[in-house]
This record gives sequence, structure tokens and C-alpha cells, in this order.
Amino acid sequence: MSIKNILQKDSIQKSITVKGWVRTIRNQKGLSFCNVNDGSCPQGIQVIFDKKFNEGTDWEIVKDIYTGTCIEVSGDLIESPAKGQKYELVAETLKMIGYCDPEEYPLSKGRIPLETLRRYQHLRVRTKTFGSVFRIRSRLSGAMHRFYQDKGFLHIDPNVITVNECEGGAGVFTVMENDVTDIQQAPRDETGKYDWKTDHFGRRAFLTVSSQLHLEALCCGIGNVYTTNKSFRSEHSTTNKHLSEFVHLEVEMAFNTFNDLMDHSEEFIKYLAKDVLEHCKDDLESLNKFVSKGIIKRVEGMMSEFKRVKYSKCIELLREKGKYKELKYGDDLWAEHENWLTEYFDDRPVFVTHWPIEIKSFYMKQLDGGECESFDLLMPYGVGELIGGSQREESYEKIMKMMEDKEIDPEPLTFYTDLRKYGSCPHGGFGLGFDRLVMLFTGIKNIRDVIAFPISYGSCKY
Amino acid sequence: MSIKNILQKDSIQKSITVKGWVRTIRNQKGLSFCNVNDGSCPQGIQVIFDKKFNEGTDWEIVKDIYTGTCIEVSGDLIESPAKGQKYELVAETLKMIGYCDPEEYPLSKGRIPLETLRRYQHLRVRTKTFGSVFRIRSRLSGAMHRFYQDKGFLHIDPNVITVNECEGGAGVFTVMENDVTDIQQAPRDETGKYDWKTDHFGRRAFLTVSSQLHLEALCCGIGNVYTTNKSFRSEHSTTNKHLSEFVHLEVEMAFNTFNDLMDHSEEFIKYLAKDVLEHCKDDLESLNKFVSKGIIKRVEGMMSEFKRVKYSKCIELLREKGKYKELKYGDDLWAEHENWLTEYFDDRPVFVTHWPIEIKSFYMKQLDGGECESFDLLMPYGVGELIGGSQREESYEKIMKMMEDKEIDPEPLTFYTDLRKYGSCPHGGFGLGFDRLVMLFTGIKNIRDVIAFPISYGSCKY
Repeated sequence: MSIKNILQKDSIQKSITVKGWVRTIRNQKGLSFCNVNDGSCPQGIQVIFDKKFNEGTDWEIVKDIYTGTCIEVSGDLIESPAKGQKYELVAETLKMIGYCDPEEYPLSKGRIPLETLRRYQHLRVRTKTFGSVFRIRSRLSGAMHRFYQDKGFLHIDPNVITVNECEGGAGVFTVMENDVTDIQQAPRDETGKYDWKTDHFGRRAFLTVSSQLHLEALCCGIGNVYTTNKSFRSEHSTTNKHLSEFVHLEVEMAFNTFNDLMDHSEEFIKYLAKDVLEHCKDDLESLNKFVSKGIIKRVEGMMSEFKRVKYSKCIELLREKGKYKELKYGDDLWAEHENWLTEYFDDRPVFVTHWPIEIKSFYMKQLDGGECESFDLLMPYGVGELIGGSQREESYEKIMKMMEDKEIDPEPLTFYTDLRKYGSCPHGGFGLGFDRLVMLFTGIKNIRDVIAFPISYGSCKY
Repeated sequence: MSIKNILQKDSIQKSITVKGWVRTIRNQKGLSFCNVNDGSCPQGIQVIFDKKFNEGTDWEIVKDIYTGTCIEVSGDLIESPAKGQKYELVAETLKMIGYCDPEEYPLSKGRIPLETLRRYQHLRVRTKTFGSVFRIRSRLSGAMHRFYQDKGFLHIDPNVITVNECEGGAGVFTVMENDVTDIQQAPRDETGKYDWKTDHFGRRAFLTVSSQLHLEALCCGIGNVYTTNKSFRSEHSTTNKHLSEFVHLEVEMAFNTFNDLMDHSEEFIKYLAKDVLEHCKDDLESLNKFVSKGIIKRVEGMMSEFKRVKYSKCIELLREKGKYKELKYGDDLWAEHENWLTEYFDDRPVFVTHWPIEIKSFYMKQLDGGECESFDLLMPYGVGELIGGSQREESYEKIMKMMEDKEIDPEPLTFYTDLRKYGSCPHGGFGLGFDRLVMLFTGIKNIRDVIAFPISYGSCKY
């Protein structure tokens, strides 16, 4: 039985056994107090090695217990006379499962900053903060699947190795089987270039930046679909929001309207907020107390109605009320503009809608006057863009013309434009960086601290 | 409302609307019969354009309807006088949503073999078989998450780009940012080799073949975990069971025993079988009728008790009863041996346990006498190995010695062997190829037909 299950019973219990890792141990007047955690809850369980235990055979073992040691303890759970916890376990027997040398163990010290813990990604999951983050992360993942399965969306993960560079080729990784380390020996074609024909796929292949185009193909035949694939970006960014690899929720809906799409996105975020508030109370409280002050209030804030404002209106507001005089229609919005907007709208999430197609992607549904049915969903408290979505252009003629205007080669996208020829239908969808969602729900400020083994420009260690 | 929802009401209904793609249309004595499908169920809905409709304004549109056309039809749902369906929709209004030219549309013909449909991966999802396969696939995915979430396992997907080659480097893809097409210009180090320091991660990186080692690090700190990552193999295999990219369920349990691990695997498969039999009845029946005769009986068969037989006993049986005289202790089992074993045990799933560590991986829990606590789970009816699992060696000394014996460089695996130094604990886990699971539950014989966009040696088209 996990420590969480034991504590959830909220009653004294005879002869229980816990197994886990020691967080802290301190000795006081011939007694030892030991906090043991098994990863099931933030607080762990308080174990007492008392004077009676002292007379038994397992006493010797206590001397070898340090932070990080793995132990098995049995005894009775009683009401704790001390404050700090409601129950405590009075040890009767003790087994050493795995010793941990305090001289060598990098996490033997007390509180260690998150930045330092990034050096120990294989161990940091044992700490209180990372335990809470990963439990909330997992809960969000489960809730996401439940939400879509209950609505009848089909979960289908397209290929992440692809010949499709999607939106123009910037920031794309290449995948190859041949080892080019010994570059003199690398196979060449008749022009002296590397001979991609000799490689695994007989041509150059990439890691996907988005599964959207593939998802559209599925959606236009089997209806609503979603994927939880990884996507990849080779950009040289070292901000606290960008990584080379991230979990990408992407959704496509058939026969929907633009408003349906926003309603759906809003419902989804609120569903997650409600779920996490209900089921991750202990973890949110622990984060609220130690790491992310105000996080509970902020998650509760997601239950308020989201604003929907046209891009043109946002530009006007930013220029006039926000004093961003240099900003003009047709400009993209930067982090500071996004933050200003959510603050202006009382810290509520804001859909910025109807962007000029000129600064958006070729596949977005065109409207008269140069706008398109697209939105960015901005989240408050500095989180910024969480979701980007749009209706997709369903007219073959219009999408071909737009690809021409944007100088996109239509040939590799024949499969995609085919969808507009063979029974085209209104559809739309969005993409969401799942890791940023976890940041939002945990209040963790650096994306490297919500992912088990984050990899980024210049950094791949595991 | 989806066609599935409409038909599930199992009653006549006034003024309903359906949107979907035409599967078939035929004209007979001034009437038209049209099967429309929206991807929600295998059978679709039968639409009648009758003589009354003929007198209305939308009649002209019917002439332009072919297989693949996307339409919207409204009318009453009545009991069907014809056999083949219980209800039919008598059209009152009709809208053309997306035209589909029968001269160009590749799926305009009747039944098309699965092999041919592989050329149209962006369209084949519209066919009856692929609809059923992807609905069952999605149901399995949802059930898998539900199973693990309900048990409190944490869903954490480690990095798929890794510097770790795991089990020796065979069949690993390299990931790079630099474009080496113009190979003369590729950056070189002082020895004339390709300079990996100039690439995205400052060193060579790979696509993972398994997340197991990373999962173990998480498990030994936060308890039971699972991942649904993609894994990758660059092997030159073109069988019907191997691909370059596949969905890999991997599970790690803490403080468990070897028997727990097998109990858990068995419970998991049975849970899925029960869930699919309950919720995918129509799809299973459709596959049973047209593509995979006997599939329902085979899925039901998974509810019987799984056999557990030691490897040494299997070798003995294969030699003596199976007449595989050339087979000896220490040999790996091949497909024909696996098939013989499941047939011998009355078509029941078989755990082959306690393999010689000599032919297994360095991380498996060693037993006296050269065996290890490992199993392969063999499925009947030619499916073969579905799951490979083991307890993990938790002794630092033993695992270091085994790595030495197997000539594995311990340096890149320091993070992994660390786990045996800092509070080591008994743990074990397994890996399962999710796509093979879908084959098992659909009866589809080629893995290319259970994946939306399969990629394999020499073949990456989307």
C-alpha cells in the first residue's frame, strides 16, 4: 500500500508496512524521526524509532540511514502528538533495502535550488517539488486523454519521422542512419553531394515540427482526432520556454465552426483546471507554500470566462491604452504585448482572433479583407501563448493560390491539397505545448523543471 | 450528432441531419440509395432520395454525388423496409459540402486490397476496414491510460532524442541539425572527422530505442511509472512486424516481485480485451466478417489464464515433443518455436520465464545458475512475442560485473548505475510494442495497416 493510500484512510492503523526513500532523519534524545517518501504524495510519512525500538534487534540499522536510503518499516500508525503531521508510524521492524552514502549522494543536503537540481535529472524526482510537478503532470495527461476519449475523439499518433518539413524548413532536425563521423568516407552522388539515396529511407528525412497536416488527412475521413506526439525544433533558443523536444497536443475537428473551436479550447482548459484542483490538492498546496506562491488562485482563475478579442482591436488597445505607439496592424505580438493584454483584461485568458493571413500560415481559413479564422490563446501571469488554432482553408483554389503567394512548393504537399479535392469539408484545429500547460498548472517558471529529461540547444545529457 | 449516436438511439427520429462522406451510391427505378459515413461507426447510414425528393429543388445535386463526396443531408429516420440495415434516412434536403471527381479519386472503386490502399495513406482512413482499425486503436490507447492512471502509475515520457545508445548501438538513428548535403562544406575537427561539437547538442545524439533506463531512474524515486513514447529502430527489416518508428508502452514498477510483474502484464492484457469486447463490438464484428475471420473468438481467448513456463522447460518440450532436435539450451527462440509453444498450450498466451542471462540484457536481475528473472510473453495465432520484461538487477556490484562481461562501457551509463548506489530498490518492468497489440486485437496481419502513416526501411512518404 502506498503512503498516500495509508494517509488517505485518515485513521490509526495496526501493523502497516511502508517502503520508500528517506527524505530527512534527525536524532533527538535517544529517538529518531525519519521522513519516508515513496513518490505517492508530497508530505511522505513520519516514522519514529522510539526507545522500545531501541531495545530491539533492528536498532543498529538506524545508524546507517541517511537522506536517500531506501528502507522498509513496519509498525502501527498512531495520531501524532507533534504538529506538522496528523499521523506517525511507530517503527517495530526495519529493513535496509538500499544504502546511500551521504558523502557521495548529491542530494544529501537540505533544500537545493531547482537550477542545481538540473544537474541531477536522474535523481531530482525524489525531491518534494519534482514529485509534485510530475504527479500533476501525469494527472493532466490522464485528464487530457479522458476528456478526448469521452468526447469520441480518436487518438492517433502520426509519424514523427517525416519527409515533410511543414512550414518552411526552419528549425528542423535531420534523421539519418549512416554514420557521417568519418566524413571522408560518406557516400556521395555523382555531383559530389552526400548521397541521401544510400540512407535508411532512400531520401532525406526530418523530425516533425507538427503533426497537423497528417491529422487533417485523418480528420477528413474519420472525424475528430487528437495526437500527443512529440514535436521537435532545432532553434538556437535558450529561453525558459523553449526546448528541442516537447509534447505536442494537436487536435483536429471536422464539420465545426471557428466558434466551436474556441468553445472547445476553453472547455478543455477548464476541464483540466477543475480536475487538477480536485485531485492534486496536496501537491498544489505544497507548491503554493514552497515554490509557486499563488498557484491555487491562478488555477482557480482559469475557471472564469475567457475573453475573445479581434487582433485589430488588440492592436488598437495596445497603441492607445498600452502606449505601444510603434506597433501597427500587421505586426506580430511579443511577450510584453501578450502580458499587457491579459493584464488589461483582468488576468483572464484572452483569445486574440482574426489575424491577418499575411503573418499567419498558408493553411488558415481565409476571410474577405485579408483576415483569417485563427486565434492565439494568451494565458495570464506571464505564461503567454498556450494554444494556436485556426479553421483550415477547405477550398482547393484558395489554398493553392495562398501557397503560391507564400512561395511554398505544392509538390511535397500533394497529399494535403488532395484533401481539398476529394470531398473537402470544414474543419479546424489547434496545437498546444503540453509542457507549457504543466508550467501553467504548477507555477514552475522554467520548462526544464516540468520535464523529466529536458533537452535543448547545447544540452542533451541523458 | 454523429451517425453512431443517431443509430445508438435505436428508434425512429424526426428531422435529423448527418454530415459525412459517401461510401456508395446507386440508382434504382428513380430512387437513389446512398451510404454515408462520418468515421464514427463501421456501417454508416443508409440515405434514400425518394420520388418526393425528386420533386424538390435539391434533386439536381444528387447527380453530382459519387464515392468520396462530402454531403449534408436532413430528413426523417424511419425503419428500413429493406434488409441490410435497421433504419434509413429519408432525405428532405441535401447540401453538397465537397465535390469528389470520380475520374480522379483513387478510392472510387469498390473493394480495394489493403496492399493497394497503402499507396493512399492520407485517404485510406475513409474505408470501412481502416475506420474500424483506428477506432479500436484509439479505444486501446484510452483504455491503456485509464488502466495505469487508475492504478496510480505516473505517465512520464522521457526524451526520445538521447545521447544514450542503450543496448549497444545497433539500429540507432542519428539526429542532427547541420545539413550535410553539401558534404565538402561540413564542419570538421582537427583530425578531419565530422565535428559533432558544431551540431545542435554539441555532441552526437540519437533517437531512442527504449526509454527503459530513463524510466528506471524515475521509478527509483517516484514509484510506478509508464511511458507511451515513440521508439525507433534503423534496422533493415521489411517483415510485416517491423517498422522504423513505433509506439512503445514501457512500464516500471518499484518494490515488486517477478511474479507481480507477470500478474500485472496478464491483468493489463485482459483488461484491454474486456474493454474492447464491450466497447468496439460493431467494429470487431465488421472485421470478423470481412477481414479477420475469428478475431472475436481470439480476443475472447485472451481472457483465459496465461501459462508460465520456464525457458529450460520450453527448450525440453520443443526438442522432445516439437521435434526441434537442433535446438539447445542457450539458443534464442524463433517465430516457429514461439508458434509451436502457444499451439502446444492450447492457443493460450505463454510467459517463457527465467532465460539464461547470457542471451539477455545486462540489466536483468541475475539468479544463481546463470538464469535471470526475465520473461517473453508469447501470444497465440502467429502473433508471437508481445511483451518482454524482467526484474532489474539492483546490486551495484553485480550490474557492474555484468557490464564488464558483456563489454558495455559503463561511463555513459553512470546515471543508471548511480541508481544502484543511492538507495537502490527492487524493481522491474516491461516493454510492449503498442502497434503489435493493435494487430492482435484487430487481426490485421501487416503492421503497416494498423498505423496511420507507417515508415520503414526504404519507405517514408508523408
